[in-house]
Amino acid sequence: MSNPLKIGIFDSGIGGLTVARAIEDTLPGFSFVYFGDTAHLPYGEKSARLIRHYASRISHHLLDWGSSVVVVACNSASSNALDAVRDAVGPEVPVIDVISPVVDEVARLALGLDRPIRVGVIGTRATIESGVYQSALSTLGAEVKSRATPLLASAIEEGFADGNVSFALLEAYLGDGHFGDVNAFILGCTHYPLIADSIQSFLSPSTQLLDTPAIVAKAVAAAIHDGRQVVGGEPERQFFVSDLTAAFAAGAKRFFGEDVALSARPIWRDQERNPST
Amino acid sequence: MSNPLKIGIFDSGIGGLTVARAIEDTLPGFSFVYFGDTAHLPYGEKSARLIRHYASRISHHLLDWGSSVVVVACNSASSNALDAVRDAVGPEVPVIDVISPVVDEVARLALGLDRPIRVGVIGTRATIESGVYQSALSTLGAEVKSRATPLLASAIEEGFADGNVSFALLEAYLGDGHFGDVNAFILGCTHYPLIADSIQSFLSPSTQLLDTPAIVAKAVAAAIHDGRQVVGGEPERQFFVSDLTAAFAAGAKRFFGEDVALSARPIWRDQERNPST
Repeated sequence: MSNPLKIGIFDSGIGGLTVARAIEDTLPGFSFVYFGDTAHLPYGEKSARLIRHYASRISHHLLDWGSSVVVVACNSASSNALDAVRDAVGPEVPVIDVISPVVDEVARLALGLDRPIRVGVIGTRATIESGVYQSALSTLGAEVKSRATPLLASAIEEGFADGNVSFALLEAYLGDGHFGDVNAFILGCTHYPLIADSIQSFLSPSTQLLDTPAIVAKAVAAAIHDGRQVVGGEPERQFFVSDLTAAFAAGAKRFFGEDVALSARPIWRDQERNPST
Repeated sequence: MSNPLKIGIFDSGIGGLTVARAIEDTLPGFSFVYFGDTAHLPYGEKSARLIRHYASRISHHLLDWGSSVVVVACNSASSNALDAVRDAVGPEVPVIDVISPVVDEVARLALGLDRPIRVGVIGTRATIESGVYQSALSTLGAEVKSRATPLLASAIEEGFADGNVSFALLEAYLGDGHFGDVNAFILGCTHYPLIADSIQSFLSPSTQLLDTPAIVAKAVAAAIHDGRQVVGGEPERQFFVSDLTAAFAAGAKRFFGEDVALSARPIWRDQERNPST
């Protein structure tokens, strides 16, 4: 097969590398191209309209770079821009978001309970205010508690993954017992898995934290279950960002779990400098 | 005078409203137009090249909106993009940044000391890594200690202006006594004045905190000292942002000190949608 399947993955920044990591672990033979829109990060504070615009353009680029599957590895984009991504890539390209597979997982958990499942979800302001988690989970009959925790992603990106800063933030966001009685808890942002243990310590020991990256990776595997496999050669892994700084280069390893060579693809500057393309 | 002087002010977000507030207090009769580039906020994590691109385009818009003076009310842009702003507005339009006036103030303070003045400065990564403060202050013969405090601006923007979160952050950034013996301390980000008291509590009581917004406002007044004054009518105050969200609308009051009606000027979307303009 001369044109092996390549998985396109994007996020507003480097947090989506947690999803890329899980995809590589689940589908080790496949090539992927990752794009982090660091020029526009964070999406979590932006309007739905702007997020849709960015996601649409990025999806076009992922196709240009050879992707035949697109993973929206960003909750803010999954909750605000999934239609825009689908419009951009057309009906032939499967689009996997980070929300639907987790909602499906909640549905499976709910089957084992004799009363409605209670689910907690935290995320950026854009994600929580979109109401997408709340609406999808309510459709299952789940009782949903949600809260925006806007500074958490930036704190993790800055390396405050444990210690007083993340403790004070979690105390401020979770310390009031709002999520005390939930059965399952969704980390609705790709950064949060890095502080999963600290988050668990603010929840009941019986609350099950859902491992979004692994769940999403399984959904990607299911979407390409038609048997197409890479034939021959090493799989290709590309890591692109729209604005490359030393801090992002240094931070990427924490999210991907091994050294990552980010390279710059300033797709917005190209567009602005050469608007006819 | 039919075309009264209007002051154009821009920042990456709403933090520069602290400077707009000081300008209004110092020059109450003047009109101004404020632009916060909330679509691209925060600048502090972006590359110098990208910041220069944004600052240049915004400066053109400030002229289109009638500005005859431009205030770069953002340390990341002042330290990385001042030339780009000057190129954009041309030689007839005075450009006031938030760094040079503060350095001039340090020079005045140094005159009263019998040994080299010791100055501390904190700011975003983009500001500190530019080396602009360090180089300008060293030219004065000052001893400079600097440190990037990247999460501080976001924390303030999220309303963590006091309490455990800002305390834990200041402890992490300032708690090691790095700035213990400085004579003067520069808050190198327009957000920081909102937690000036907390910052002072991590410094020696003899350390003088420099009030950047007031110092910059005086520099603006000096730049327009040629006697042009508004004649008749109420001064016009416009508050534009490139991406309007409820959170920015709600946060603006904390920075400006009174209610502010932000309105959207999506200058980047216009550019991207209609590239020929």
